[in-house]
Amino acid sequence: MIDWKLKDISFNSDNIAWHGNKHLVGNGYMGVRGTLEEYTKEQLVAVNLAGIYDKVGDGWREPVNAPNGFYGYLIVDDEVVKLPESSAEEHYVELDYRYGIFTRCTTWRLMRGNITLKSTRFVSMDDVHVGAIKTEISADFHADVKYVFGIDADVWDINGPHFDIIKVNSNGLMTVDAVTHEKNHNVSVAQKVTVEFPCEVKREEEINKAVASVSFITDLNKKYVIERYFALYTSLDCENPLEAAKEAAVTKAIEGYDTLLEKHKNAWENLWRRSEIIIEGDDKSMEALNYSLYHLHCIAPRHADNLSIAARGLSGQTYKGAVFWDTEMFILDFFIMTEPEVAKKLIKYRIDTLEGAKEKAKGYGYDGAFYAWESQENGFDACSDYNVTDVFTKRPMRTYFKDKQIHISSAIVYAMDKYISLTGDDSILKEGGAETIVECAKFYYSALIKKVCDDRYELRDVIGPDEYHERIDNNGYTNRMAKNTFRIAIEVLENEEYLGAFADREELIGKFSDAFDKIFIQQPDSEGVIPQFDGYKELEDVTVDEVRSRLIDPKEYWGGAYGVASHTKVIKQADVITWLAMYPQDFDLEVMKQNWNYYEKRTEHGSSLSACMYALVACMCNMTEEAFPLFTKSATADLAPGGKEWAGLVYIGGTHPASAGGAYMVAVEGFAGVNFKNGKLNVEPKLPESWKKMSFHITYKNVLYRVEISDNEALVTEVDDM
Amino acid sequence: MIDWKLKDISFNSDNIAWHGNKHLVGNGYMGVRGTLEEYTKEQLVAVNLAGIYDKVGDGWREPVNAPNGFYGYLIVDDEVVKLPESSAEEHYVELDYRYGIFTRCTTWRLMRGNITLKSTRFVSMDDVHVGAIKTEISADFHADVKYVFGIDADVWDINGPHFDIIKVNSNGLMTVDAVTHEKNHNVSVAQKVTVEFPCEVKREEEINKAVASVSFITDLNKKYVIERYFALYTSLDCENPLEAAKEAAVTKAIEGYDTLLEKHKNAWENLWRRSEIIIEGDDKSMEALNYSLYHLHCIAPRHADNLSIAARGLSGQTYKGAVFWDTEMFILDFFIMTEPEVAKKLIKYRIDTLEGAKEKAKGYGYDGAFYAWESQENGFDACSDYNVTDVFTKRPMRTYFKDKQIHISSAIVYAMDKYISLTGDDSILKEGGAETIVECAKFYYSALIKKVCDDRYELRDVIGPDEYHERIDNNGYTNRMAKNTFRIAIEVLENEEYLGAFADREELIGKFSDAFDKIFIQQPDSEGVIPQFDGYKELEDVTVDEVRSRLIDPKEYWGGAYGVASHTKVIKQADVITWLAMYPQDFDLEVMKQNWNYYEKRTEHGSSLSACMYALVACMCNMTEEAFPLFTKSATADLAPGGKEWAGLVYIGGTHPASAGGAYMVAVEGFAGVNFKNGKLNVEPKLPESWKKMSFHITYKNVLYRVEISDNEALVTEVDDM
Repeated sequence: MIDWKLKDISFNSDNIAWHGNKHLVGNGYMGVRGTLEEYTKEQLVAVNLAGIYDKVGDGWREPVNAPNGFYGYLIVDDEVVKLPESSAEEHYVELDYRYGIFTRCTTWRLMRGNITLKSTRFVSMDDVHVGAIKTEISADFHADVKYVFGIDADVWDINGPHFDIIKVNSNGLMTVDAVTHEKNHNVSVAQKVTVEFPCEVKREEEINKAVASVSFITDLNKKYVIERYFALYTSLDCENPLEAAKEAAVTKAIEGYDTLLEKHKNAWENLWRRSEIIIEGDDKSMEALNYSLYHLHCIAPRHADNLSIAARGLSGQTYKGAVFWDTEMFILDFFIMTEPEVAKKLIKYRIDTLEGAKEKAKGYGYDGAFYAWESQENGFDACSDYNVTDVFTKRPMRTYFKDKQIHISSAIVYAMDKYISLTGDDSILKEGGAETIVECAKFYYSALIKKVCDDRYELRDVIGPDEYHERIDNNGYTNRMAKNTFRIAIEVLENEEYLGAFADREELIGKFSDAFDKIFIQQPDSEGVIPQFDGYKELEDVTVDEVRSRLIDPKEYWGGAYGVASHTKVIKQADVITWLAMYPQDFDLEVMKQNWNYYEKRTEHGSSLSACMYALVACMCNMTEEAFPLFTKSATADLAPGGKEWAGLVYIGGTHPASAGGAYMVAVEGFAGVNFKNGKLNVEPKLPESWKKMSFHITYKNVLYRVEISDNEALVTEVDDM
Repeated sequence: MIDWKLKDISFNSDNIAWHGNKHLVGNGYMGVRGTLEEYTKEQLVAVNLAGIYDKVGDGWREPVNAPNGFYGYLIVDDEVVKLPESSAEEHYVELDYRYGIFTRCTTWRLMRGNITLKSTRFVSMDDVHVGAIKTEISADFHADVKYVFGIDADVWDINGPHFDIIKVNSNGLMTVDAVTHEKNHNVSVAQKVTVEFPCEVKREEEINKAVASVSFITDLNKKYVIERYFALYTSLDCENPLEAAKEAAVTKAIEGYDTLLEKHKNAWENLWRRSEIIIEGDDKSMEALNYSLYHLHCIAPRHADNLSIAARGLSGQTYKGAVFWDTEMFILDFFIMTEPEVAKKLIKYRIDTLEGAKEKAKGYGYDGAFYAWESQENGFDACSDYNVTDVFTKRPMRTYFKDKQIHISSAIVYAMDKYISLTGDDSILKEGGAETIVECAKFYYSALIKKVCDDRYELRDVIGPDEYHERIDNNGYTNRMAKNTFRIAIEVLENEEYLGAFADREELIGKFSDAFDKIFIQQPDSEGVIPQFDGYKELEDVTVDEVRSRLIDPKEYWGGAYGVASHTKVIKQADVITWLAMYPQDFDLEVMKQNWNYYEKRTEHGSSLSACMYALVACMCNMTEEAFPLFTKSATADLAPGGKEWAGLVYIGGTHPASAGGAYMVAVEGFAGVNFKNGKLNVEPKLPESWKKMSFHITYKNVLYRVEISDNEALVTEVDDM
């Protein structure tokens, strides 16, 4: 069995950025990168906030990093002792991913002896505004120790600085009150320290930091414990965030570290009761999978009603903290099956941003709702027309993600439909969902074109999931998803409950039915291969390796008008296969297999959204062994080194929630074979060889089931919610 | 008045390529670059052939350069005396552009004294297979002269070599018989020399050259004359081209140089009688304009029925020797008005290549006739999908000239319509023209799309005349030209004479009428500006200079997906203005002026097709002074240095027939104000200030008119054809 702990011993400064993601802790309100407390912005420290954005100058709008309440470092015998500058004698970092507890322990050999600093910290899953850190210091000599600590408001930003005003106060309760540039949001942090040994407490001065220190001389090998509590509120939370933060910091300090930790662990335990997946026979898979789920838990917006999940979670400002189709297509299933109330929030975010989607559609001359490719608050599309920088000319390249990746709206409708059919909860329809669905269908209807001489409806000049081929016609996935949108919209319009909502109901039903009938759906060719888009089969047929060998600069973009992949059959990620994963009923197994074999070897898997779709379809085709490495790739996206960190010259590092969600889908829907054909829960397991037993819970139509699989037989038991 | 001679004194090797174009002689069958006879392929010598193409390996198919029958050089006192290696004491080159006679005269100072070589040459306008060169040698010392001469088959090629077999024979009559790689065409040249002074004649050996020599000792300052005659035939001309060449060379030598020259000059004089334009008060304009017409005469395919004019004439292999829309839109008017029988040939070429155009359409999923962007024999489209090389990566760039520049077919219909209405000769309709027109209309009909939710017909994803903006929707020019195609096709279909030709006549009339009514035509916005395409007005509004200043490499391509101009309002060439030049009746004068002012300052004039259209529309707007420098630019495209010789890394140098034709249009249709409104010849002059008088002839509906303009009054007299 696994111990739910990731331990990295020894120190390597090359890993700082990667470990920042790997050792992240979070509670949906904030994500704190797995950096050491003595680090500053140079080491990409971030207390990344959900749903609060800022834009400065010509830079991209991005989420705000809050002042860091975990900040602190040692001075021994007047010498600053910090990583990475002061090399350590011993060092380890440990992430307890069952409970989101980050521990670091470092011993430095100094002139007079060894000193050890161990600190343990978490951001509370019980009260999302709060973080606590317990620091233990011990030395094998009489060290003259000064521990400096507080709140660091000199935060890391990609397109910052975002704080126009930073007020720091280190008298008594330490506070930072910062004001964002664009919208004047207050971001306030208060910190309370508790020290129960004799020491000198002093106010300190550092620019844009609220800092104090405790000074003491150590007894030999005695542990000196410093407990700190910070609270973080913004003006989106309440009217006076500074006061709220101060009050919370004081209250939590009174409650004490152990009590907070207990509550925090209970909150996590509650989450795991419904989501933990036990795999017997393959600890590595069990670890990677549950570690993936840990990340999903860290970023679930349980505290809010109008938030979704960003493509890089709460690991920083990459991808602009924006919500992509990742949420609907890759992440949602996990929450639907383990915590439908979170799934509903994710969907509500889209319903609440319908106006933004309608505005975007209008701006491009469409009707209905064209959802943002990179959605921020109110559905604002943070995506720019120039998303990639040419490595050769250093010029921005015109990209078309924003204006031509029209499949985004269909993903939202697909997700709503799935939510309703798997939870049985159609309340979202009345809460704006029905309108959202119809507006999405109106969008596709307005985008449909036909040749004057032909009656087939088409979607031209689009980008499908595979972004390396831009401005293509009749992307199979997009057209199929649009067709599905028409179907669901018709169902909504025909539902008597929403009769009153649509004045032009009859007309819309007529239009959408016509569109549903006539929209062109790519069909398998004589070899059984479904063309990804019109003309795909005429492209140069080369291997992924051959395409890679044509790179002149390793950072150059494979796509765009002239990329190494653009005019070849090599694709970035699952595209036709994503279609088949969503609609396995469309073709028979032979066609599925044929397409899997055809496309898999032509796929770079250059997106973390790729492997899981291939793994899912492989499972459907009874190709468990082919699926297994792809599952592992998905499940270890944040665990293994070597993730893709660059697109052109743009840094895209961070955690990969979609990959984590994809790993869940493969484990539960693929290997365990959970499906809902004919409106009921079926479990048709196809476990990998090494998985002797597998057990987990899922929620279906408001009933909690325990699924136990052994010898590829499934035992499904209805259980009382625990 | 002008002397019809261009004389360049002094020698500069930097000008070799440019002068090759500037001093070209030609007779429609072949063009001989204005290079010296001692030059070889290093100096871009070419005897460029009309209508015979070859492809080797992966290179572009291009026209064949024939073995050079003008080859010859001096050896004096055993020393090779040649330009550019042996620097000259005195040197001039003269082109007589009234008669296409090229003269070079060079004096070298050698150890023992000065020797002068003068040679005069022409390719006969009377017998297009023949060239003659008369070489005069004199020295002011007793020079030991050897003159080596013959046929150089080691020709300059861009994508060659094109001859698989080269048989040379220097015994008696010199011959070269070469066989092309792809289609095994024979290209045969024979040469006969006549020397009427005592000398030693010897066979010589040079690889891939048929060479001989005459040796003699010079008397002081006596002229030694060597006359040579070559004849050139290919297997496209007759069954046994070698025999034909041999026979012709011998026959011409018997006729003698002076007789041949006389016949040649008479043939030219015949051409000038109907085409010469006399301008009093501005010799520079008169020279540039008639020099332009000279170039058009040099490349008119009078000898053939199935040839048209290549975009770089017969100046070499650039632009693949292919026929572009240049012929129909820029060159045709000159021939219609001066030599309608040539105009008819140009049109017949398109009719004869209808099958190729139908095949191309089919290949792209269209109906009807989609003419080649770069048309070679049988309408084969020589245009590649990768026409530009990226200067940064050296990779070929995917361009869309071939597949998306769909306005080409409309130009052919426009030209046919113009030919018929200006000549009154509708015989072309019966000779395949009617079918051609209808097939072009069918092509556009099949390309029309509409939004399902809208009834307006559109042409999307095209390239208009301005190639810097690719893959755009509803290019104003293209849509307008397509609409015109529908109109003309309807007229043809409604013409009772062709009733039998079209089985689906009624149906086609219905479709084309519907298309004519519904095709979207861009309209002036509130400022009176007609958008070049959908979304043009939203592009970055910067100056041409600003765009130029963004270049990193002076040779980089301004267009394509990421070019410096691509996402700005800066355009390569007249686009909306070309529309207005073709359809001045579409908008009132104010709109014309407004668009001229708006677009002219945003135009790079990076194509030789640009200035003349702006000049034409300026004349229509009574802006003669604005038109004048643009006329000069067009008329001097081959006369002035500094032409655009590069597109990315591709050499595009050569002569500019479209510019020459454009200069004619501006002079005759713009300044002289010749038009055919209401079906009759009108002359409404707006001469530039400096043009005191202007006179010329034009043919309209088979009647020859003399037009004399002075004081901006026109006198039009019907004259007997002379």
